[in-house]
Amino acid sequence: MGNTPFLDKLSSTLAADRLLTSLDECTTFATDWTKIPGRAIAVALPRATAEVQNILRLCSEFEVAVVPSGGRTGLAGGAVAKKGELVLSLSRMNHMGPVDAAGRNVRVQAGVTTQAVHEHVAPAELTWPIDLASKGSSTIGGNLSTNAGGVRVVHYGMTRKWVTGLQAVTMQGEVLELNQDLQKNNTGYDLIQLLIGSEGTLAVITEATLRLVRRPQHVMTTLLAVNNLPRMIELFANAIRKTGFDILAFEFFSSRCLETVKQKLNRQCRLSVQSPYYLLVEMEGQDSASLKTNVEDWLEEILGSGFVIDGAIAESSADKKQFWSLREGITESIALSGPVKKYDVSVSVNKMAALIADVESFLSSHNFHFDLYLFGHLGDGSPHFNLLKHSKASAEDFEKDATLFESRLFELLKNCSGSISAEHGVGLLKKDWVTFSRSAAELRLYHSIKDAFDPKGLLNPGKIVDPQK
Amino acid sequence: MGNTPFLDKLSSTLAADRLLTSLDECTTFATDWTKIPGRAIAVALPRATAEVQNILRLCSEFEVAVVPSGGRTGLAGGAVAKKGELVLSLSRMNHMGPVDAAGRNVRVQAGVTTQAVHEHVAPAELTWPIDLASKGSSTIGGNLSTNAGGVRVVHYGMTRKWVTGLQAVTMQGEVLELNQDLQKNNTGYDLIQLLIGSEGTLAVITEATLRLVRRPQHVMTTLLAVNNLPRMIELFANAIRKTGFDILAFEFFSSRCLETVKQKLNRQCRLSVQSPYYLLVEMEGQDSASLKTNVEDWLEEILGSGFVIDGAIAESSADKKQFWSLREGITESIALSGPVKKYDVSVSVNKMAALIADVESFLSSHNFHFDLYLFGHLGDGSPHFNLLKHSKASAEDFEKDATLFESRLFELLKNCSGSISAEHGVGLLKKDWVTFSRSAAELRLYHSIKDAFDPKGLLNPGKIVDPQK
Repeated sequence: MGNTPFLDKLSSTLAADRLLTSLDECTTFATDWTKIPGRAIAVALPRATAEVQNILRLCSEFEVAVVPSGGRTGLAGGAVAKKGELVLSLSRMNHMGPVDAAGRNVRVQAGVTTQAVHEHVAPAELTWPIDLASKGSSTIGGNLSTNAGGVRVVHYGMTRKWVTGLQAVTMQGEVLELNQDLQKNNTGYDLIQLLIGSEGTLAVITEATLRLVRRPQHVMTTLLAVNNLPRMIELFANAIRKTGFDILAFEFFSSRCLETVKQKLNRQCRLSVQSPYYLLVEMEGQDSASLKTNVEDWLEEILGSGFVIDGAIAESSADKKQFWSLREGITESIALSGPVKKYDVSVSVNKMAALIADVESFLSSHNFHFDLYLFGHLGDGSPHFNLLKHSKASAEDFEKDATLFESRLFELLKNCSGSISAEHGVGLLKKDWVTFSRSAAELRLYHSIKDAFDPKGLLNPGKIVDPQK
Repeated sequence: MGNTPFLDKLSSTLAADRLLTSLDECTTFATDWTKIPGRAIAVALPRATAEVQNILRLCSEFEVAVVPSGGRTGLAGGAVAKKGELVLSLSRMNHMGPVDAAGRNVRVQAGVTTQAVHEHVAPAELTWPIDLASKGSSTIGGNLSTNAGGVRVVHYGMTRKWVTGLQAVTMQGEVLELNQDLQKNNTGYDLIQLLIGSEGTLAVITEATLRLVRRPQHVMTTLLAVNNLPRMIELFANAIRKTGFDILAFEFFSSRCLETVKQKLNRQCRLSVQSPYYLLVEMEGQDSASLKTNVEDWLEEILGSGFVIDGAIAESSADKKQFWSLREGITESIALSGPVKKYDVSVSVNKMAALIADVESFLSSHNFHFDLYLFGHLGDGSPHFNLLKHSKASAEDFEKDATLFESRLFELLKNCSGSISAEHGVGLLKKDWVTFSRSAAELRLYHSIKDAFDPKGLLNPGKIVDPQK
């Protein structure tokens, strides 16, 4: 695939098992969950930071572009190599250090999975609070590069809140050893936060010191049927300020989502009542007895309100699993039903009802060849608009309609200061829309920052923003 | 004071009540709690973002340097105008918007005090979790510019975790409207986090959307006497992972601190036992009954351990106030005793006992003209080393000894990857030591970032790093 001098030098620098060059392997590593077709010159799989330094120095010397790569579970194309770049996969850098219980942190290499971290720190009664559907595959380096969210954001916030230290390598081959395990270090600009969410365009994250929290032990899960979206948001605003429990998750889905999960995945729902929306609310208590009392009191209160028309508490871990299976089965059940377009966006919580009403009124005034499946993280203002093609519609009509829908959705988001990307970043897929969420002044600063870290523009080129002329 | 064309243009641009030019006023606004002598050409006191834009554009045009200024409670000199700069005080920008209960946020102008925010949001059962001794004077703009900490960091973390959106004005007069009230917006580099902690060197913060949390309602405060520092850290590591309560504060002080507070401020301590260290631990529960049980159980457990030799629970709000007055009176009581040097540093929690032992062994091998008063935030790894001059020592001997102590302390911090500044930033006072906490590669990136925002170097010049030649 060309550039023999570079590949010769690279293979003489790296041990043989650190380099893949077959077309099959290159093609696999060049793409992610977006399935955008990729093309890579080779795949480097270093095991140590020093190897990452050597690889990046060589890329700088030969002016070869590099795409850093983790679990490749992204949905914006941030890890796709489209133009024959070198894929630099961190997946073999999966060492984890001992848990520091007093400092509540753990040092890990970038290639460990989210789930591996959870399992590693659990015996110390601690957890890393980022919890994702893809946790078995997604890696820490990728989580940090995209500032991942997940189902616990309502309580814990995004990934960037849970990183104490970072080690990263620049295109010049320099190691930035940022902050290590200090909780307080106010000596200049926070480069850690600049690298988090930068989608591998500034430096390659090789290690991180993750901030841990006490592992939730007393947790209760409820399922609620609600007849009204604005009231559902009111319910959230009141519940989140109540003492008696901490809300760990506040997820919603429409009746269409529930019906599809029940049918396609043959799952049962404890609530038999029909309702436009359902909520899955998970609560943490400090001891099990008072948690139970406090949750039951709350449920009694809201069931008397008129807009929560039914509710159930998970009485066993099997119940809890079943409740979550309804929420977590949505993506799979829709995928089993036909072609889908997904829009994972965000808006201020108190503007969410208005946004959804606007989307629904737009849909009702058109005769689109798809159905809307609406679900997401209510507490974060993060709805997922999924479009499922009508079974008899043509692929062309679906594409055309989805494009129209997308433009309108992004326009609505722009008007209410929402974001076109709540998760997964900009990558390749959302680049054309970045000006809807970022101003010209911000983009100018992005270019300057990019130039400061990567003056030759070799690191994950074309992601977030295109190189300046 | 010179530069008449600039001042003429400025006074024609601003309303008369927005500009101070008397020597007295200029001198007052040119310094902060460090008392470093300051000198300012004038003080501008805008009330709106558009006025800040006009002022900064004019400064760019006339190449006049600007020092942004808040409550001037900093202890590193970050708000000191030393060279006849224009002081841009945000103190009159003190409007607060309505509380958004569903989004758990509030929009405020940069000049409001921390305490005003707390009082504004309390009726909604919410709080902004940054709690500082200087909260009556310190402003939001200053808190953000220095990434302030305070007594609740062990539970909530630093200021940067509690900011959702930011409005800032660049030296070019452009308004950066960053993120507003979105909890998720993964579309590019996080300029909010870059501005937080940048000590007013990149842009002037004019407004912020602050992230709020439920206001703690069930709180218990305990005072413990502990006979051993490493065991005290073990105690923390175990307590922080216990369910039954959340730890809001975990503060420590030496017996010398306690004795001075009792003598100088005539305060009582419920614990009569003599012990090398004391702990003030504050805990939050979800309801008062279970909190009481859980705290009492814990106290019984640790009192049986052999290294917690006495303990008391605050039974009333008067008790609680009294417990806190012992911790919060330390700074005042030492100041009443003579000249003091203060070192507010940080280290990994699990290295704190070793650092303190090294400092004590250094002290014992010298015949210094001061006594060490040791206290601080144990849970954050943030000890405060205060040096009080011996009453009969000369100022010169004290200065000489303190300089020697400072070098050794910073050297020890460097060796254990600690930070020379846990709070207040680098400002003017810690600039010479910044290389102890930051590498050459980091500092090069700082310069590039500074150039991207402020190419003429007019914004708070000489803070954090000196301009490059």
